[in-house]
Amino acid sequence: MLALIAGSGDLPAELVARLSDRPLICAMSGFEPTSVEAELTFRLEQLGSFLIELKSRGVTEICMVGGVGRPSINPTAIDAATMPLVPILQAALLAGDDGALRAVIGIFEQLDFAVRAAQEVAPDLLMAAGVVTKVQPGELDKADAVRGAEIVAAMSAADIGQSCAIRTRQAIAVENTFGTDWMLQSLQNRPDGSGGVLFKAPKPAQDLRADLPTIGPATVELTAKAGLSGLVLEADGVIVLAQDEVIATADRLGLFLWLRPA
Amino acid sequence: MLALIAGSGDLPAELVARLSDRPLICAMSGFEPTSVEAELTFRLEQLGSFLIELKSRGVTEICMVGGVGRPSINPTAIDAATMPLVPILQAALLAGDDGALRAVIGIFEQLDFAVRAAQEVAPDLLMAAGVVTKVQPGELDKADAVRGAEIVAAMSAADIGQSCAIRTRQAIAVENTFGTDWMLQSLQNRPDGSGGVLFKAPKPAQDLRADLPTIGPATVELTAKAGLSGLVLEADGVIVLAQDEVIATADRLGLFLWLRPA
Repeated sequence: MLALIAGSGDLPAELVARLSDRPLICAMSGFEPTSVEAELTFRLEQLGSFLIELKSRGVTEICMVGGVGRPSINPTAIDAATMPLVPILQAALLAGDDGALRAVIGIFEQLDFAVRAAQEVAPDLLMAAGVVTKVQPGELDKADAVRGAEIVAAMSAADIGQSCAIRTRQAIAVENTFGTDWMLQSLQNRPDGSGGVLFKAPKPAQDLRADLPTIGPATVELTAKAGLSGLVLEADGVIVLAQDEVIATADRLGLFLWLRPA
Repeated sequence: MLALIAGSGDLPAELVARLSDRPLICAMSGFEPTSVEAELTFRLEQLGSFLIELKSRGVTEICMVGGVGRPSINPTAIDAATMPLVPILQAALLAGDDGALRAVIGIFEQLDFAVRAAQEVAPDLLMAAGVVTKVQPGELDKADAVRGAEIVAAMSAADIGQSCAIRTRQAIAVENTFGTDWMLQSLQNRPDGSGGVLFKAPKPAQDLRADLPTIGPATVELTAKAGLSGLVLEADGVIVLAQDEVIATADRLGLFLWLRPA
C-alpha cells in the first residue's frame, strides 16, 4: 500500500487522480496539502510513531509530493519512538534542500519503506518527447534551447535556478530564488520587444525522488505575457500539470510547447 | 604617444581627465564618443590607412575605451591599406565579444602598436581594496559576497553576466544580457522586502584590455532603490567612475561600498 506525504500545490491532487487505488494521504502538521485532504496528520516530533502507524496500516511505499517548508522542532514534544531519529532530523534541518530530502529518505528506507517519486507512481505526469502544439519551434528556437540547456547546467552547478529565458542565444532572464513565475513577470518590461524561449530542466544532480520542476497553465500564460515564443522543457525532467489545458492555452496564445530530450 | 579609440559612456572623459599629456582622441565612424570630442575619425574599411596615419603622428600606444557596437563592413569602401586586414576583420565580426577584441588587438600589435588597458593608463580608475563608506558590511554581507563570487564565476563560465544580487546566500537576481541597471530595476518589485548585496566582478577569463565592468553614481542609486544594503566589487576588477560622488551617494543612502580582493 502507498502513503502520500502531501504538501501544497496542485501536484498531490493530479497524482491522486491518476491512481486506481486511493493511497493513504498524510500531511506534516503545519504544511497541510491544499489540493487534497489528509487522512492522517503527523508532527515531525512524532515521526517515529507515525511510521509505526503506517506499518500497522499495511503501508509499504511512501511518496512525498508537493511543497513543504522547513519545520522547526520543539524538543519537549519529541516522543520515544522519534528519539533515535533526532540526530538525522537535526542534520536534515541544517542541510540544503537536497541534503534534507536525502536524510528524510534515509529514515524511511531504514525502516523498510520504499520511497517512490511522483513520476514513478504516475508516469504520465511527464509528457512524451516531441512538440505537442500547433506551432512548431524554428531553427533559432532550437539554437536557443541548446543555449538554455548550457545555462541551466551552469546555474545548477552553482545551485541557482532551474529555468532561464533566451533570445538569439543571449540570456534575457535567469531564474533566481523567487522562481520561474517571478522571472517571467520581470520580462513584462523587457527592453528588447519580444521573441525567445523559456527553457526549464531539473538540476543535473537532482535526486529524482524530490519533486521535479513543474509547470501548468499559468506558466504558459506568463510565458506569453513575457513576449516569448514558446516553452522548451527537458523531456522526462519536468512535470506538466493539467496537460490538456496547458496544450490548449499554448495553442490559443500561439506558443509552442516542446518536450526536448536531454 | 598615446591614441585613444573612444566609444560611448563616461569612461573616455574620466580617463582623459587623469592623463597629464593629452592623447590623440580617435573614434570609429558611427560609434563616436559621447563624453569627449574625437580629433580623428576613421571608417573600419580604412583601418589600414588610419593606422598608417597614427604612425606618422608618432603614436606608439593605443587604448580602446568606452562602448562601441558591431559595425558592418561595406566591401566597396575598403581601401588598399586595409585589404590585407580583411580576413582578420571578418573573423572578428563573427566572433564573440572577447574573440572580436582579441582579433582587433592582434591587428594593432602586428603593426607594432602597444595596446594598453584603461586601468593601465590610469590606474586610479580602480579603487584600492577596502570599505570606503561609513557603513561597513556585516558578517551576513560577507557570506553573501562569497556566494556572489561563486555565482558570478559560474555565470561567467556560461558567458551570462557579471553581476548578481544575493540575500542570505540566495541569488535574488542574476544579470542577463540587459545589464546591471536592468537587473537592479527588476528588484524594485522584489517579493522579499529588502536586504542583500550587489556583487560585481569581471569574467575570470576576460581579456583585461577590454573595458572592465564599470559602476558610477547611478549604480549606487539603483542599488538603494532595489532595497540592497551595499555594493561588493571585485577590487582591481571593476572601474569606479566619479569616485567621490559614488562614495558620497553611498554615504547619503546608507549603503556600504566594499572593494573586495578576489
